Amino acid sequence: MKRIAIDMDEVIADFHPKMVATFNHHFSLKLTHSELNLFSLAAEKPEMLREIFTLVSEDSDFFGDLEVIEGSQRVIAELGKRYEIFITTAAMQVPTSFNAKFRWLNTHFPSIKPSNIVFCGNKSIINADYMIDDNAENFSGFCGEGILYSAPHNLQVTGYRRVKNWQEIENLLM
Amino acid sequence: MKRIAIDMDEVIADFHPKMVATFNHHFSLKLTHSELNLFSLAAEKPEMLREIFTLVSEDSDFFGDLEVIEGSQRVIAELGKRYEIFITTAAMQVPTSFNAKFRWLNTHFPSIKPSNIVFCGNKSIINADYMIDDNAENFSGFCGEGILYSAPHNLQVTGYRRVKNWQEIENLLM
Repeated sequence: MKRIAIDMDEVIADFHPKMVATFNHHFSLKLTHSELNLFSLAAEKPEMLREIFTLVSEDSDFFGDLEVIEGSQRVIAELGKRYEIFITTAAMQVPTSFNAKFRWLNTHFPSIKPSNIVFCGNKSIINADYMIDDNAENFSGFCGEGILYSAPHNLQVTGYRRVKNWQEIENLLM
Repeated sequence: MKRIAIDMDEVIADFHPKMVATFNHHFSLKLTHSELNLFSLAAEKPEMLREIFTLVSEDSDFFGDLEVIEGSQRVIAELGKRYEIFITTAAMQVPTSFNAKFRWLNTHFPSIKPSNIVFCGNKSIINADYMIDDNAENFSGFCGEGILYSAPHNLQVTGYRRVKNWQEIENLLM
């Protein structure tokens, strides 16, 4: 059975809207969804990124009430009939997020076995056939095929099959 | 650079003595180190195992003050010069252990990057050349070579290279 490794934030968990709201509130700004790019921020204003990550780290429930990305529950249930499904999430930047992420997965994806949940940082450690992720850096050194889940921050990235939503993932893999 | 995936409990963190003490105290028993075998217990008295895991789960610091297994710090520092080191620990059975385990690693193995720490369940998801683990079940489906770290519960297991201590790991891999 082939194996799919699926990222959480921005792929199944709608992290960005809450981050934009938190960021705007904290810095008294009015950035839109597409104007806040955490990846550019890491390069251009790392002190702002550190500050916001500290804020998020202090709220151990930040990741607990994110919305589910549309279609992900239905399509993952379908994929589970033909593939082995793992959730592979980079939790090490905000280590206080472990428990909230674990609870969130149990609530919204109860059919995914706890033993198939992976908290990691460097995703080249993952042994799978496909990795669905919005961060192409995670495909570096990955042994399988990276499938890029579109997000405002990765629109310029090329070199991978790209999907815009879960319907496209279903079309691609089922 | 070849990669080594290293387990925590019973390989670098001395989990068993604290578990024996906790178990004896809770059930008013006087089992020795070698008499308590959690793997046999899972098969023979699963209700006792569930009870003790519930107890451990309620103590979010249980994993925070374990002793370091002798020699592991020195040898892992040496191995780090020649291999990429990942810590791969099965934390999903006691999900409340994430934070304590993460802090323990930062305290006792500060040179291991957080991005190289992996909390998982099914370790067949790990892509590495070697896996050092006391639980041979974790070698099932693993793409590299499993190296069995001796423990009372695995003395009957064959089919893998076996090491009794960190000096033997150094001799084997350096």
